[in-house]
Amino acid sequence: MSQPSRDLLETFDNPFPQRDYIVDTVCPEFTSMCPKTGQPDFGTLTISYIPDRQNYELKSLKLYLQQYRNHGAFYENVTNTILDDLVAVTKPRWMKITADFTPRGGIRTTVIVEYPERSSR
Amino acid sequence: MSQPSRDLLETFDNPFPQRDYIVDTVCPEFTSMCPKTGQPDFGTLTISYIPDRQNYELKSLKLYLQQYRNHGAFYENVTNTILDDLVAVTKPRWMKITADFTPRGGIRTTVIVEYPERSSR
Amino acid sequence: MSQPSRDLLETFDNPFPQRDYIVDTVCPEFTSMCPKTGQPDFGTLTISYIPDRQNYELKSLKLYLQQYRNHGAFYENVTNTILDDLVAVTKPRWMKITADFTPRGGIRTTVIVEYPERSSR
Amino acid sequence: MSQPSRDLLETFDNPFPQRDYIVDTVCPEFTSMCPKTGQPDFGTLTISYIPDRQNYELKSLKLYLQQYRNHGAFYENVTNTILDDLVAVTKPRWMKITADFTPRGGIRTTVIVEYPERSSR
Amino acid sequence: MSQPSRDLLETFDNPFPQRDYIVDTVCPEFTSMCPKTGQPDFGTLTISYIPDRQNYELKSLKLYLQQYRNHGAFYENVTNTILDDLVAVTKPRWMKITADFTPRGGIRTTVIVEYPERSSR
Amino acid sequence: MSQPSRDLLETFDNPFPQRDYIVDTVCPEFTSMCPKTGQPDFGTLTISYIPDRQNYELKSLKLYLQQYRNHGAFYENVTNTILDDLVAVTKPRWMKITADFTPRGGIRTTVIVEYPERSSR
Amino acid sequence: MSQPSRDLLETFDNPFPQRDYIVDTVCPEFTSMCPKTGQPDFGTLTISYIPDRQNYELKSLKLYLQQYRNHGAFYENVTNTILDDLVAVTKPRWMKITADFTPRGGIRTTVIVEYPERSSR
Amino acid sequence: MSQPSRDLLETFDNPFPQRDYIVDTVCPEFTSMCPKTGQPDFGTLTISYIPDRQNYELKSLKLYLQQYRNHGAFYENVTNTILDDLVAVTKPRWMKITADFTPRGGIRTTVIVEYPERSSR
Amino acid sequence: MSQPSRDLLETFDNPFPQRDYIVDTVCPEFTSMCPKTGQPDFGTLTISYIPDRQNYELKSLKLYLQQYRNHGAFYENVTNTILDDLVAVTKPRWMKITADFTPRGGIRTTVIVEYPERSSR
Amino acid sequence: MSQPSRDLLETFDNPFPQRDYIVDTVCPEFTSMCPKTGQPDFGTLTISYIPDRQNYELKSLKLYLQQYRNHGAFYENVTNTILDDLVAVTKPRWMKITADFTPRGGIRTTVIVEYPERSSR
Repeated sequence: MSQPSRDLLETFDNPFPQRDYIVDTVCPEFTSMCPKTGQPDFGTLTISYIPDRQNYELKSLKLYLQQYRNHGAFYENVTNTILDDLVAVTKPRWMKITADFTPRGGIRTTVIVEYPERSSR
Repeated sequence: MSQPSRDLLETFDNPFPQRDYIVDTVCPEFTSMCPKTGQPDFGTLTISYIPDRQNYELKSLKLYLQQYRNHGAFYENVTNTILDDLVAVTKPRWMKITADFTPRGGIRTTVIVEYPERSSR
Repeated sequence: MSQPSRDLLETFDNPFPQRDYIVDTVCPEFTSMCPKTGQPDFGTLTISYIPDRQNYELKSLKLYLQQYRNHGAFYENVTNTILDDLVAVTKPRWMKITADFTPRGGIRTTVIVEYPERSSR
Repeated sequence: MSQPSRDLLETFDNPFPQRDYIVDTVCPEFTSMCPKTGQPDFGTLTISYIPDRQNYELKSLKLYLQQYRNHGAFYENVTNTILDDLVAVTKPRWMKITADFTPRGGIRTTVIVEYPERSSR
Repeated sequence: MSQPSRDLLETFDNPFPQRDYIVDTVCPEFTSMCPKTGQPDFGTLTISYIPDRQNYELKSLKLYLQQYRNHGAFYENVTNTILDDLVAVTKPRWMKITADFTPRGGIRTTVIVEYPERSSR
Repeated sequence: MSQPSRDLLETFDNPFPQRDYIVDTVCPEFTSMCPKTGQPDFGTLTISYIPDRQNYELKSLKLYLQQYRNHGAFYENVTNTILDDLVAVTKPRWMKITADFTPRGGIRTTVIVEYPERSSR
Repeated sequence: MSQPSRDLLETFDNPFPQRDYIVDTVCPEFTSMCPKTGQPDFGTLTISYIPDRQNYELKSLKLYLQQYRNHGAFYENVTNTILDDLVAVTKPRWMKITADFTPRGGIRTTVIVEYPERSSR
Repeated sequence: MSQPSRDLLETFDNPFPQRDYIVDTVCPEFTSMCPKTGQPDFGTLTISYIPDRQNYELKSLKLYLQQYRNHGAFYENVTNTILDDLVAVTKPRWMKITADFTPRGGIRTTVIVEYPERSSR
Repeated sequence: MSQPSRDLLETFDNPFPQRDYIVDTVCPEFTSMCPKTGQPDFGTLTISYIPDRQNYELKSLKLYLQQYRNHGAFYENVTNTILDDLVAVTKPRWMKITADFTPRGGIRTTVIVEYPERSSR
Repeated sequence: MSQPSRDLLETFDNPFPQRDYIVDTVCPEFTSMCPKTGQPDFGTLTISYIPDRQNYELKSLKLYLQQYRNHGAFYENVTNTILDDLVAVTKPRWMKITADFTPRGGIRTTVIVEYPERSSR
């Protein structure tokens, strides 16, 4: 299946660019395929950002994420790639993605990525 | 429908202006209309502030927020506008609004605005 | 996409057929497609049954349910069809399926089917 | 404002009329107006039914319920009327509505109606 | 202080007397005085009933219950008396009151009364 | 240490003997000693009863239960004995005690006794 | 009714004045009267402090707070006044009061006061 | 590894055989091996019974269950076998075991067995 | 009854003294006697520390805390004394005790002590 | 039984080494043996790290942890040793392990280790 494309992401002009404010978007219906086992993975993505000039439009975000439904990707890859795509399209002042995946083999994994990076905890 | 007006907001003299203290107000019955789909939106507004000379009166806050019931407004707009109105009327030392909206298309959105701004997270 | 087939379901001999006992299986990672909107649906299936001669094998159940991933089906159809398939393959003494779907348009739906039917509540 | 009309409710043929099964629909975004105070009321409606020949269509249910948004109605009236409307349109084998309203004056009210009636608890 | 009086309770005509339905009213702000220690007691009253010809009006219920604020009464007495008063005024088909009191001396007490009585559990 | 005595239990006249009603008493601060290991045990006792002519007085119940603080007793013994004592003193129409003990060796135990007995579940 | 008086508050010598330590006291049974509507208000007070030379005695704190039972006071006033009284009597190194009031008109309010003040959040 | 043996189970005389009462034992630290994959399984066993002449001793129950730690057994087998062993040793009036296993492949399984059997649900 | 003694506390050599790490110990079964009322008090102690050369042994900690079972002590005293004892015996790099006591007179108290002290909050 | 070996841990190249990001792994199915009592211990390990050049592979982590199933180890030892092993194999920029063990003797223990160390709390 073809690579998910950031072209589906649409934006609109930030209506309050003069102010730093945070938008949190929680997407509990994320699903992709494990490239190793061919089995589906499920997770909840939480995207937080401070928009600069452009905010992402929510319906386009949903369609963008649905591209991963039949796409194979490892946890670390998919989370970092979504951050790269959203940063490229919205050029935010700050963005953070927390991806909580459901348990596999009794182990539960969360990946947390941030832009721009802060000093290591 | 006409634009919500900050004129409905009433204030009273801060009884303890000599001290910085915080008032949190949680309004779980906020509703407005989506300008795109014409469908109602629902959310919980949490308003926190440190009053300076004027505190808002709770019943007038309720009536002010009810103006949004049949008013079309996007999430980012409505949250920033309410902050602007409350700041204009009460001139607080600090104020923060967290607006949690119910899920649409499987996606849940929260908008967080603050006055005066703090450095980006 | 082709119709999900009950042929993927495998069974094994009930090791304790002399006793009525209940097996509950909770599948929180069910997903199918809405035939009307083309959008994915998500839900949790809870299958309870009293096996007679055959129990379903769990890995084959998982593969059977994954057939719905890209298959269009309404809530009532998908739940009744899965009951029909599981009953046909395992011929249980009793079976009940509760399917909880995530909210759409602010409305959450659950479908509950049972075999053999009991008198209406 | 005009009276809510059951004409907005649409149905579809029950795909499994040969079997008694239950559909639960939870609508946490119900709102109406108090005829006494003119203030909005908020509540969660839970509708459970065993369809006979006709199931209600979910989007039409949403639009039907939105008619109450600016309509004045007491708790007992609104709950019984919605039951009457849904029964008239779908003629179910059984239906029950539980309406949980948010607190007013420190008191929380729930109204539970059922068709056909069962003997008093 | 004077005895709480059932005269404050107001009723309205049951709008759907042809149907048995249940109204639940939860009052988490009940308070009275312990006649032994003179200390305040706090509790949550849950009143459930099937109205016959008369429903109690919620604001009058609130005022009726506030009469206990400075009135001395033991748990068993207060719960049974409120049942007697509400039954006398509304003559319901069925009524049940559950009164949960906050802990005293590390012990938490609940009193459950019902009209008409059912066979002992 | 001496045996706990039911003589500490005091009663008062049931103020509403004409009606069957339930009193639930939750005692989360029960503690006794394990006769085998000499170590303290901890648990929550929930006592439910329908009084006949006599109700137990709560402070005397507390003092009665405190007798077990330094008394050695196995779970089954202590729960049955407390039921026997409370039944002897109050002669209730019905009584049930549920005793939840905290984990020992990773195992949590609850003992449930009832008077008069009902048919086995 | 007369003004609540701080004279009811009693203290005892801090047994460990050589060490900064925190005492948290949670009072979920606070109630006062709304001076505007004459209706009772209910709330939970959480008092945290670092004692210096004097700690407040808990029973006297309870009696002090019970003075508000039939006293009219707005949320901001009552919280600031209680802080002033407790600071005057115990002269603590630090104290903070969080007062959570139950919902009125669908709106829930919390007031947070601190001594000595810290820089605004 | 050798087969778990019921010989490790010890009993003591029921101290109150004249009364039907229930003992619930919750064992959240059960673990065995999957015979198919060789991987460990984890679960919580809840054992409820009405003892007749013999109660099982808790420490011996723990040692009995630890025999499964390195023993391969399918869910249905292990639950039915433990019931058989406990019934053989204690000869109870009634016993029920609920075994909740942790998720494997996104699917969670519970097995419920009872002695003597009741009519199918 | 004699004074609890720190002599019961045993230690073992810190196996990783080259690294700062935290050990949290939660003891929900703490009980002592109120010296004023003679009634038992109950609480949960949470002890956190960074060991230096010596760690406390858990069974000896349990026996040390059991000395308070029949010992009279006020909340502030008992918490500070336990900190002093544990610091004297283990000489940790850092230690903090949080003692949550169950409600008395509707009021719940927590005492938080720390070694070495940090600047007041 | 032989010593658990870090040789089972496998790694893969960090796909986004240019960015600091966090991976959290929660393992609720950890079990080892108490070297003192010979009884099994159970716990939940939460491993958080910022990978540098190498990430650990999840299946190999599971197999590595399973080595502790029949291995005797004290809480402090096992947690520090797992940190040492994971740091040796992945050479992360930062790593933290929180190990929550289930209660023993009514006491619950958590060990928290971090690399590189931060200044003591």
